[in-house]
Amino acid sequence: MTDSVKFNRACVIGVGLIGSSLAHAMRTAALVDEIIGVDRDADVIARAQKLGVIDKGETDLVKGVKGADLIIVSTPVGAIGAVAAELASAADDGALIIDVGSVKGVALDAAKAMPERVHFVPCHPVAGTEQSGPEAGFASLFHDRWCILTPAPRDDDAYKAAVDKAAALWSGVGAKVEIMTAEHHDLALAVTSHLPHLIAFTIVGAADDVESVAAGEIVKYSAGGFRDFTRIAASDPVMWRDVFLNNKEAVLEVLGRFSEELAVMQRAIRWGDGQALEDAFTRVRGLRKAIVEAGQESAAPNFGRDDKPR
Amino acid sequence: MTDSVKFNRACVIGVGLIGSSLAHAMRTAALVDEIIGVDRDADVIARAQKLGVIDKGETDLVKGVKGADLIIVSTPVGAIGAVAAELASAADDGALIIDVGSVKGVALDAAKAMPERVHFVPCHPVAGTEQSGPEAGFASLFHDRWCILTPAPRDDDAYKAAVDKAAALWSGVGAKVEIMTAEHHDLALAVTSHLPHLIAFTIVGAADDVESVAAGEIVKYSAGGFRDFTRIAASDPVMWRDVFLNNKEAVLEVLGRFSEELAVMQRAIRWGDGQALEDAFTRVRGLRKAIVEAGQESAAPNFGRDDKPR
Ligand SMILES: NC(=O)c1ccc[n+]([C@@H]2O[C@H](COP(=O)([O-])OP(=O)(O)OC[C@H]3O[C@@H](n4cnc5c(N)ncnc54)[C@H](OP(=O)(O)O)[C@@H]3O)[C@@H](O)[C@H]2O)c1
Ligand SMILES: NC(=O)c1ccc[n+]([C@@H]2O[C@H](COP(=O)([O-])OP(=O)(O)OC[C@H]3O[C@@H](n4cnc5c(N)ncnc54)[C@H](OP(=O)(O)O)[C@@H]3O)[C@@H](O)[C@H]2O)c1
Repeated sequence: MTDSVKFNRACVIGVGLIGSSLAHAMRTAALVDEIIGVDRDADVIARAQKLGVIDKGETDLVKGVKGADLIIVSTPVGAIGAVAAELASAADDGALIIDVGSVKGVALDAAKAMPERVHFVPCHPVAGTEQSGPEAGFASLFHDRWCILTPAPRDDDAYKAAVDKAAALWSGVGAKVEIMTAEHHDLALAVTSHLPHLIAFTIVGAADDVESVAAGEIVKYSAGGFRDFTRIAASDPVMWRDVFLNNKEAVLEVLGRFSEELAVMQRAIRWGDGQALEDAFTRVRGLRKAIVEAGQESAAPNFGRDDKPR
Repeated sequence: MTDSVKFNRACVIGVGLIGSSLAHAMRTAALVDEIIGVDRDADVIARAQKLGVIDKGETDLVKGVKGADLIIVSTPVGAIGAVAAELASAADDGALIIDVGSVKGVALDAAKAMPERVHFVPCHPVAGTEQSGPEAGFASLFHDRWCILTPAPRDDDAYKAAVDKAAALWSGVGAKVEIMTAEHHDLALAVTSHLPHLIAFTIVGAADDVESVAAGEIVKYSAGGFRDFTRIAASDPVMWRDVFLNNKEAVLEVLGRFSEELAVMQRAIRWGDGQALEDAFTRVRGLRKAIVEAGQESAAPNFGRDDKPR
């Protein structure tokens, strides 16, 4: 694995939260000389340019990627296939293409379909916020977070070198790199990201459903726990639609486990089985401690958000 | 409603997160001259005294409450009935008794069973953290949070004055006061607090269940959303056991609504109905905005917990 890496011209396709964060981060770490933005929305391009995220912008992908030795596909997952198909002919020879999509099966398919002359390495930085758009990006987003690579099954040295370069890029912006199969990624992330989002969307939606409790009351008493769920439920609907459409099997599989566990809890409540509830609640406490110790979470009570004098 | 209130001697029964926070807050606002702590655990008493939470401590409730004009029952919900039964004879004439329990039906029953000479006003401050014990308490916990009072159906002036005093006490520590029936409280809080906790406990428990995903991976990739749930799932198991044992009907009712909504989501995923998913995800975004605008949540991305240079 190369320790440092440098690109002449990066082209970011889809200048949103992740694309602009990576642009900021690469600039901060001096990993790139010039950054071109491509977005189907000219307004996004204009805003990103004004913010200094990109040097130049293009709504035309073919023009935008010309001369780029690094192409970052940071669109929603549903667009990766079509963008990759365009890149198959539009990308310069030898270009490194990475995506940042939250589902890797679909990116792997796109990577496999690429001609040998370009090198598509599917990537997923496990980092983000509930916000979107170029304004939401910031350079330190990937610090101490994991980035998972799911390379295509290619044995040629050029591709292997491209995987190393991709890994060095993510290390260069502060991330820790892991390599695994797309299949395993999609199951692991169904557990740690996709199901949590689905449940958050669902619980926030279900709250509206209890007729005798007014929306105003839900707002007022949300500090009882509900507000935690509204954070990830505020995430971009299109991005998440695409995640569920493209990781159906794994999500349905972990959802089945969740539903079983919920049925056990429901029965314990119905039967008034305090011991079963207490045991179940006690068992889950260790995981947060491990997450805090691994540097993946704040140790402060309430995530530190109630930043009042103590 | 009286605007300010002052007590000579407060007795806090159960010197944990909420009891010690209220002690700190009352002291900071100069609402009380002396604070006595009662806990069944002598070690808790000793720690609370060392922290300056209480002036004196007692493991014997009858001795502890002698001379107190304010008695705060801040034990888990399951202990409120037994503590109240002791207070029926042990409390001084005219004493104001409040509890802080997360379920109000059980506190209301206790309040109704009280002799007329003492005044039990059930209260629930909708504020907290995932931590417990006297060390976890802090004075500003109730600032800008709602406190719900569910008074007993008593018409005498002494009780009405006690309700006013309880309201003034909560206002005095920075909370906003609302009065409603215990029944409505228990349904509203089932939505905004009890169901979210149950779901968080369940999802964290279910994560363990997917054999091919290791615990270490759950920790590493928890920043994908999972870590949010571990916060409330780290809350005290006994406290939450008691909540579910004592608010069974309302919790099962809102859990039913949640399960219906989840079935709808599951079907949309199985059928690949992207429009239904996108619509559902779009609908829920407004609620967080309203919660942030109401001052019940931080507007910072990721709750502001990733406090890195931007
Ligand atoms: N948000 C997270 O927490 C997170 C974390 C890790 C990975 N990811 C992944 O990162 C990717 C981007 O997510 P994001 O959060 O950065 O979303 P975002 O802020 O909404 O940015 C996506 C950008 O891509 C543009 N776009 C959509 N389709 C396009 C196309 N066909 N060609 C060119 N541009 C297109 C969008 O334009 P419009 O606004 O016009 O649609 C938008 O500017 C997704 O694949 C997501 O799964 C997200
Ligand atoms: N945590 C929250 O976010 C929150 C928010 C609003 C309301 N509440 C309510 O506030 C109450 C207290 O919760 P907390 O979070 O402060 O819990 P906590 O930190 O665990 O404190 C509870 C204290 O009560 C003691 N205790 C238990 N049974 C007792 C008894 N029979 N007599 C005397 N002391 C006894 C406990 O001692 P041991 O340690 O020996 O058991 C502990 O010191 C609960 O009713 C809860 O529903 C909690």
